[in-house]
Amino acid sequence: MKAVGIVVEYNPFHNGHLFQVEQARKLTGADVVIVVMSGTFLQRGEPAIVSKWQRAKMALTAGVDLVIELPYMYSTQKAEIFANGAISLLAAMGVEFINFGSESGNIEDFENLHMFMKSHQTTFDQLVKAKMKLGLSYPRATSEAFCQLEPDSSILTLTEPNNILGFHYIKAISEQGHKIKATTTLRKQAHYHDRDITQKRIASATSIRQAIANGQSIEVKHVMPETSFRLINEYKEAFSLLHTWEHYYNLLQYKILSTPLNDLGLIYECEEGLEYRMKQASKLSSSFTEWMEYMKTKRYTWTRLQRLATHVLTNTTKAEMKEVLSLKPQYIRLLGMNQIGQAYLNQTKKQRALPLITKPAKLEGTVADIEERVTNVYIAPLDTKQRTKQIREEMTRPPILIQ
Amino acid sequence: MKAVGIVVEYNPFHNGHLFQVEQARKLTGADVVIVVMSGTFLQRGEPAIVSKWQRAKMALTAGVDLVIELPYMYSTQKAEIFANGAISLLAAMGVEFINFGSESGNIEDFENLHMFMKSHQTTFDQLVKAKMKLGLSYPRATSEAFCQLEPDSSILTLTEPNNILGFHYIKAISEQGHKIKATTTLRKQAHYHDRDITQKRIASATSIRQAIANGQSIEVKHVMPETSFRLINEYKEAFSLLHTWEHYYNLLQYKILSTPLNDLGLIYECEEGLEYRMKQASKLSSSFTEWMEYMKTKRYTWTRLQRLATHVLTNTTKAEMKEVLSLKPQYIRLLGMNQIGQAYLNQTKKQRALPLITKPAKLEGTVADIEERVTNVYIAPLDTKQRTKQIREEMTRPPILIQ
Repeated sequence: MKAVGIVVEYNPFHNGHLFQVEQARKLTGADVVIVVMSGTFLQRGEPAIVSKWQRAKMALTAGVDLVIELPYMYSTQKAEIFANGAISLLAAMGVEFINFGSESGNIEDFENLHMFMKSHQTTFDQLVKAKMKLGLSYPRATSEAFCQLEPDSSILTLTEPNNILGFHYIKAISEQGHKIKATTTLRKQAHYHDRDITQKRIASATSIRQAIANGQSIEVKHVMPETSFRLINEYKEAFSLLHTWEHYYNLLQYKILSTPLNDLGLIYECEEGLEYRMKQASKLSSSFTEWMEYMKTKRYTWTRLQRLATHVLTNTTKAEMKEVLSLKPQYIRLLGMNQIGQAYLNQTKKQRALPLITKPAKLEGTVADIEERVTNVYIAPLDTKQRTKQIREEMTRPPILIQ
Repeated sequence: MKAVGIVVEYNPFHNGHLFQVEQARKLTGADVVIVVMSGTFLQRGEPAIVSKWQRAKMALTAGVDLVIELPYMYSTQKAEIFANGAISLLAAMGVEFINFGSESGNIEDFENLHMFMKSHQTTFDQLVKAKMKLGLSYPRATSEAFCQLEPDSSILTLTEPNNILGFHYIKAISEQGHKIKATTTLRKQAHYHDRDITQKRIASATSIRQAIANGQSIEVKHVMPETSFRLINEYKEAFSLLHTWEHYYNLLQYKILSTPLNDLGLIYECEEGLEYRMKQASKLSSSFTEWMEYMKTKRYTWTRLQRLATHVLTNTTKAEMKEVLSLKPQYIRLLGMNQIGQAYLNQTKKQRALPLITKPAKLEGTVADIEERVTNVYIAPLDTKQRTKQIREEMTRPPILIQ
């Protein structure tokens, strides 16, 4: 059996994702579609609107064969680390292909870019550094440096988020020395940052979350499989919320105001005195939105600051991240499968590079500690009884099996 | 002007307290009654049901002339440290007398006990240590050691909480070398631990809090000055709660589950692997009461464990406490006064041993850091907008002046 891997957040799973799964299968001729999905907190430094279990179910009912979890140490990171972690897990699962959505849609663009960057890495890094010294944010500095190196570039622009990720997938495959063949699917109808549901059947996850928040359920229903829609509502009914940052603001404020400045400075991604700014923001802000508005400067992107807030909330330190990122992944956590996925697991058992874990409660070490902590923090806004029940169940829950 | 000092929590202020204020004035002939009052968290490791401002108003409207704050470093401590801090602040205010309520009511009992203990301290300490090794809690070991040393003692039993405090006031006055004369008032009608309102006009603060929680407002109204009753209800209406541990349980659970074991071990009063027990209790308990029941052992009293929970919640470490307790108090925080109190402050300005602080926002150093942090934690259960407003105002609020 041949497998194609996709790196996903599915926040929530929608028709665009469904299209990609179908395209990935068609383009590669793979028998199995494996997704590596962020568990609790996402790349942009936000909580997933519903639990990983609910999102894994959405994927499996829509035709994905296997769902494994992208741990927090990779999931809430800039593109390079995110891609590195995701590719190493997909490689350990033995995928022959990967597929990613992009604003380009042409895989040669990415391969050319990768070759170009390889030969210009030093110059490029120096340019980025110089631009950041002038006060530009990292993505902006990267993008400007790229345009400066290749002013007439027809290769690919590095400003579109999915292009950036795509580039890092290709780079990770090459640097990790895998023989995985990358394919890409054009993201036709929706841009990642779009906030309105403008097209009929396809909309970005951002615009869907916005529409859900506004109670536009008819619009939402049109742009996702019926099961996704049902699973979102099921979660909302069971737990009386869909997770947003605002549900965590009391904890974030408590955490920041009860932590000495020196200790805040130890948090991952807390640099250049951001701890002072966070203290001040927490004294003055009545909501997470206000907090972010206080925090925002030209130097840091919204996403960068949201990731910092997430690391503060989850109490993740520089020392811990240094430790876990210096290691290769130690295990794969399986969230769910269908029968094809199960057959694939059986067939590839002997070749699999990493142990497949279904009950992380038994794991030890810093990676497992972070995962447990982050999971408990994700659950924290639920009401007391449900929260304690989920805390007990989360680490021993068996993977989902769809018949 | 002569002053008498009283050490109080006023949680809430009731007729027993009123009686004591009147007795203290009568017994000593003092012109001024000064109380040093715990601010946010109390000796038994609980949040005060209403803010220090509301409780200071209760005291001032009932005839107390000056209210100063007992900082957290002393307020949530065993009797010895609690008494030491309170006496040093009252001494700095220049009081000539102190008065305390006791189950004994006879000041000679306390003086005799102090003399007796002075000459038996080493034997006593050894006995206590030996009993604790057998698994007894500290108060129990103390009490048994005392009975063993003096089996027929008519002096005073050390099991009643107000007797214990009284003994430590006398000891602190002697050890700190003050010339303060101690007086005591018999606590006639209510025992500290009583949970029912049994008498008509006097009831313990514990039973009053219980009655408030049960909504027995008629019973409550009978046992406290009308203003106290009004001020409690005013707070409840403004902030929609009267603080209990249950309002903090989500924060405590979040804090414990998001803190690595090693870091929990650094918290003040976290000894002998209690960090493991706290982690486990937090995974299994849906309420603070359940949490405490899980934590409880023969070795630790309920109070001791509640104090530990408070230090965890306020993130107060052994290192910090060691630092601040090694110093004498640096300042006095004034919470409120009437015109007699104000006149006393003017008259004693030059002799006052410590600076009087009204806006702690300007203070620096570990003591001030702890106070600010603890204050913000106390406020944390209020709803978002009120919380942020209180956080902003708390450290700059001027003292209350009652005309």
